[in-house]
Amino acid sequence: MGFELTILGSSSATPIFNRHPTSQLLNIRDRYFLIDCGEGTLLQLLRYRIKYHRISHIFISHLHGDHYLGLVGLLSTYHLQGRTNELHLYGQQELMDIVEIQLRVSNTTLRYNLIFHPVRHYTPEIILEDNEVQVRSIVLNHRVPCTGFLFVEKNRPRKLLIQNVQKHKIPVTYYSKLKSGADYVDEIGNSIKNSELTETPPKATSYAYCSDTLYDPLMKEVVNEVDLLYHEATFLHDLVERATQTYHTTAYQAAQVAKDGKVKRLIIGHFSARYKDLDPLLAEAQSVFKETELALEGRKFKVG
Amino acid sequence: MGFELTILGSSSATPIFNRHPTSQLLNIRDRYFLIDCGEGTLLQLLRYRIKYHRISHIFISHLHGDHYLGLVGLLSTYHLQGRTNELHLYGQQELMDIVEIQLRVSNTTLRYNLIFHPVRHYTPEIILEDNEVQVRSIVLNHRVPCTGFLFVEKNRPRKLLIQNVQKHKIPVTYYSKLKSGADYVDEIGNSIKNSELTETPPKATSYAYCSDTLYDPLMKEVVNEVDLLYHEATFLHDLVERATQTYHTTAYQAAQVAKDGKVKRLIIGHFSARYKDLDPLLAEAQSVFKETELALEGRKFKVG
Repeated sequence: MGFELTILGSSSATPIFNRHPTSQLLNIRDRYFLIDCGEGTLLQLLRYRIKYHRISHIFISHLHGDHYLGLVGLLSTYHLQGRTNELHLYGQQELMDIVEIQLRVSNTTLRYNLIFHPVRHYTPEIILEDNEVQVRSIVLNHRVPCTGFLFVEKNRPRKLLIQNVQKHKIPVTYYSKLKSGADYVDEIGNSIKNSELTETPPKATSYAYCSDTLYDPLMKEVVNEVDLLYHEATFLHDLVERATQTYHTTAYQAAQVAKDGKVKRLIIGHFSARYKDLDPLLAEAQSVFKETELALEGRKFKVG
Repeated sequence: MGFELTILGSSSATPIFNRHPTSQLLNIRDRYFLIDCGEGTLLQLLRYRIKYHRISHIFISHLHGDHYLGLVGLLSTYHLQGRTNELHLYGQQELMDIVEIQLRVSNTTLRYNLIFHPVRHYTPEIILEDNEVQVRSIVLNHRVPCTGFLFVEKNRPRKLLIQNVQKHKIPVTYYSKLKSGADYVDEIGNSIKNSELTETPPKATSYAYCSDTLYDPLMKEVVNEVDLLYHEATFLHDLVERATQTYHTTAYQAAQVAKDGKVKRLIIGHFSARYKDLDPLLAEAQSVFKETELALEGRKFKVG
């Protein structure tokens, strides 16, 4: 498993039957990151048979209900089901107030360690960094404090030069060592340098999540050359005034960000309930940036 | 439309795909009462094509997430969709704290009047009374403060003695006046007494909702002779110890309440996720009280 995004919901705030509010599951080498958690996210995780107990980090972009109202249910369920692994939660400071009051009234003392990381909305920061991944916040411009998130994979494994590896009859069980940079040493002590057997891995895979926001031409610099960009596209461009008033983006504008940012692929979502048929949104975006897809529930996007 | 209950969800707290947590819609003569509001209730209202803007009163039994986590999403949606009719909310005092903090962080000032009625959990009270209906709280015994609700229809229309009405050739347009107790007066001033044309209406219809609770043999007095009783039945009776530890009821015990209370019909719900097949719960309850049905999602129960 490399780098894969699963859409759990992509509706905007006004409800429409069979479309769920925003949530996404990002799997980076079997580490599970949940991005936003609208109402019903837990049932969506069950629907798509995602091993939700593996989620270790949850990122909430902002405190409009369609982006977080499923959180307390998920946290409570982990508790009821006996979770013991720690869970990291990222969001605006007030998010933790909302969580705490609801745990308190239900007399719940979580059985696992919930570690809250407040995210500042007015400046981009590295909010998570370890050997495998770096996550940076993205400053967005919405009616309430709102951030996106940029996920960059780190330390990708070296790539096997499979012909050379096979020529030297190296056992398959040795491949993971080679990928991590080790030389090959056979049973009688002969060695082959790693550089003969592998090559430098491709550029680190990256995913930018731009939640609710007014269109910002400078966003191209933040999302520059990412492999995958999710950008909200609440409206068609004929409603650009409504989009501006409500601090949202049109499909045309989202595609402009993708094009100007020279990203590889674009996913659009956060569709207004007025659009029963989403194809016009896709067509409008593709007229500017061809490599666009819709954030349909259950759809998976493999990256890198 | 007389008196009809629609089940929107009846799962207990641990999630299971395609079962929603507790919520019910009670329609008394086209007045819509929502009873509990677990996560996903709004989408369930949409699924069953219920005119959810007609809901005028919401009753929350207690502050475990599976009974109220859908509330803020519903309140916000009313706001976004321009509701102006006032809405009455009943629940523990802390419920309003939870609602308020979430409206505040999203900068939401509701466009409609939300009138909160705190419900005391330690004493039964009349919490709503008007010309058509009386609602009383029921003291339950759960891990957190918890109440049920008893709905009693008032002022039922008198029942037409249709043979007499037809004999006197009374126009159909006059029927509603007769039902409300008026004498008949024809065009030339002859009158017929109402008592010749109608009879006393049947006993007022009643519905008792017993949310999460430890089995209580004295509950029979509270629910005495109601037309319809909903009682939680989280477990089969072989798990009676687990039920007692968690302040829940078994199917056997729920049926005992119905039998001892001489109710007309029983609905059981709040099923533990461990029961994929609900028939054993039904069979266990029916062995004690035959007129038992399962609170399956989408099922409607007409009363009276």
